[in-house]
Amino acid sequence: MKITVLGGDGYCGWATALYLSRQGHDVAIVDSFIRRQWDFELGVQTLTPIRTLPERLRAWKRVSGRDIGSYTGDTTDYQFLASVVERERPDAVVHFAEQRAAPYSMIDRQHAVFTQVNNVVGTLNLLFAIRELAPDCHLVKLGTMGEYGTPNIDIEEGYITIEHNGRTDTLPYPKQPGSFYHLSKVHDSHNIMFTCRIWGLRATDLNQGVVYGTVTDEVASDEALVNRFDYDEVFGTVLNRFCVEAAVGEPLTVYGRGGQTRGYIDIRDTVRCIELACLNPAAPGEFRVFNQFTEQFSVLELAALVQTAGAHLGFDVRIEHLPDPRVEREEHYYNAKHSKLLDLGLEPHFLSESLLDSLMNIAMQYRDRVDTSLFMPRVDWRRTRNDRRGPAVDKETERWKAGANS
Amino acid sequence: MKITVLGGDGYCGWATALYLSRQGHDVAIVDSFIRRQWDFELGVQTLTPIRTLPERLRAWKRVSGRDIGSYTGDTTDYQFLASVVERERPDAVVHFAEQRAAPYSMIDRQHAVFTQVNNVVGTLNLLFAIRELAPDCHLVKLGTMGEYGTPNIDIEEGYITIEHNGRTDTLPYPKQPGSFYHLSKVHDSHNIMFTCRIWGLRATDLNQGVVYGTVTDEVASDEALVNRFDYDEVFGTVLNRFCVEAAVGEPLTVYGRGGQTRGYIDIRDTVRCIELACLNPAAPGEFRVFNQFTEQFSVLELAALVQTAGAHLGFDVRIEHLPDPRVEREEHYYNAKHSKLLDLGLEPHFLSESLLDSLMNIAMQYRDRVDTSLFMPRVDWRRTRNDRRGPAVDKETERWKAGANS
Repeated sequence: MKITVLGGDGYCGWATALYLSRQGHDVAIVDSFIRRQWDFELGVQTLTPIRTLPERLRAWKRVSGRDIGSYTGDTTDYQFLASVVERERPDAVVHFAEQRAAPYSMIDRQHAVFTQVNNVVGTLNLLFAIRELAPDCHLVKLGTMGEYGTPNIDIEEGYITIEHNGRTDTLPYPKQPGSFYHLSKVHDSHNIMFTCRIWGLRATDLNQGVVYGTVTDEVASDEALVNRFDYDEVFGTVLNRFCVEAAVGEPLTVYGRGGQTRGYIDIRDTVRCIELACLNPAAPGEFRVFNQFTEQFSVLELAALVQTAGAHLGFDVRIEHLPDPRVEREEHYYNAKHSKLLDLGLEPHFLSESLLDSLMNIAMQYRDRVDTSLFMPRVDWRRTRNDRRGPAVDKETERWKAGANS
Repeated sequence: MKITVLGGDGYCGWATALYLSRQGHDVAIVDSFIRRQWDFELGVQTLTPIRTLPERLRAWKRVSGRDIGSYTGDTTDYQFLASVVERERPDAVVHFAEQRAAPYSMIDRQHAVFTQVNNVVGTLNLLFAIRELAPDCHLVKLGTMGEYGTPNIDIEEGYITIEHNGRTDTLPYPKQPGSFYHLSKVHDSHNIMFTCRIWGLRATDLNQGVVYGTVTDEVASDEALVNRFDYDEVFGTVLNRFCVEAAVGEPLTVYGRGGQTRGYIDIRDTVRCIELACLNPAAPGEFRVFNQFTEQFSVLELAALVQTAGAHLGFDVRIEHLPDPRVEREEHYYNAKHSKLLDLGLEPHFLSESLLDSLMNIAMQYRDRVDTSLFMPRVDWRRTRNDRRGPAVDKETERWKAGANS
């Protein structure tokens, strides 16, 4: 298939582009490199020393013999985006090209507005470009499980059948997103659903869980292909951050009591899920939603797994409870369905100690690059301005820890 | 109370500002006058010759002895908006300052993006300004009944209790908006709900039905206080447009079969509902939703009422079915709850023949200002570019009318 990957220089995007290329698809990457710019803004860097996209693509050609096309530009620039869609006329567009960190969106007003405008306008532009230039193209859009929040009933895949006052309808599942970033994904979902209805577009919304891992067969095949590995409090997803914390002898930073339960997925399954969605496209006019994760864990369960695995490697791993900088339930019901990708043939990589070992070993390998000051949360959901110069929860930390860690 | 009305120069905003002032509230208007600019862009004008805001405010002072403050600027300009909130520190902000026409948002990509960015960013800015500068201020936000779409179950006021797999939760009512404009209001609702939760803001989302009428006691008290009366296919709401069509001898432009059923409200009730919301504020942290309409009608029922009232005035009113330029169900179940404002004391003005007479008489009074070319729909939901030079439904109109009008 001819597949265009928007955001193909990012964490999930890069692994996906290589995987799709290895499977024989004709892949092109679109990226503005703004993700790399955010590292400079925040004073952080990926644990792994990633190469520039041109170096990465040359290495891939050397290793695999395959070309991946590349376009540099921004999805919020319609003329640019339309020119790409017109030239590629892809069978599928995989859309990763959004600001994807909840804490980044909560830094202050500018970051909230930027996140929503960037994500919503980029997706609107893509919808118009597909309709005008490649109306049969299948949009594979990355959503997030965080769109649903933590309702007290089972989470279904996108829709729920409701009986009410003797009548029945199947309606979009109610959304209770927990940050300006998660809200932007809810806005996208509503916009995409609408264009499927009025223009007959075909779209799959992949409500992805928290991704962990960094290595796939493809990125492991050459040092120049190494993937991002973010461990900071803004862009570092929780399990990756825990593994780095454990490896460098810092306590695992659990927010609150740690009962927050979410869906999780190995990045090796992410890339396979994307291909499954592409190979089995939505019908014209269909807005399809898959919950893209394989297992549920609470934060404290993950911390305990890392603690155990770390002990086997000889690390003394402590767990530290911090006041939760987010506004979220620390104990709650959570049961989210995720059968549609399994039905299409996904064979999950469940979380294993060997995966945790591998992540901690990567952290050891690059420990000279670890900045331990980046572990502590500095963005507090309750504040409208976070200057990130001190911990989000500075004032109350000590008082609170006395109770929670006793 | 001290009340700031954003968009106070517009159709509902102006009538509301005067009503609140008459009730003794301390009112300030904020407006950028972009609504007047859209008239120039579209080549349309209000049926009634409205005055500039400074003339209006001088007339109001003359008639009532009361001052209404005025700030000129845009809600998407945070520095401006924050300076207003800081100076006024209002008890309530009534937020009408959005692009509010579904067809305008469907003209093309630029208008879709403009509508969503303008509305979402303006509201985000307002939420931040309230949190930072007047955290106890009650946000009274105009939403729309169009956020819900036309589900096959009863529409509740904002939330629905769902039993599912043996568990129960009360969740935000699922949204199925029908235009990029209606989508922008859904985005706003999610953003506001979130800030109530994380920052303890107090907000009331008024999901208003289609407004009709133009006269309130206040705007009738002086010619210089006359309110807008839009009858064009973009900004003219359906009943107002029908009354003008009837008065000038043009057929009523019913889209499709006319079974589209919606909630409707007299503008005299709009202004009262706003005051009721202000006088009975949401609690801190509460995101409250009222469905703000008083009666349900199908489009064809409204056309028949106008036809009958017109006949009594000696008009020969024809009804013309046009292919629906919108993508919507032309026959459907519709039953929306609307008891919360009644519980607060709203005494509705139900639609009467005397109101229709009054609207047709206004149309007769200003018939020299009527441009009959503005009645026909020129914005087709199925197109991504509407140049508005010809009817939206030109090509298929004749064939279609042969069947539908037989």
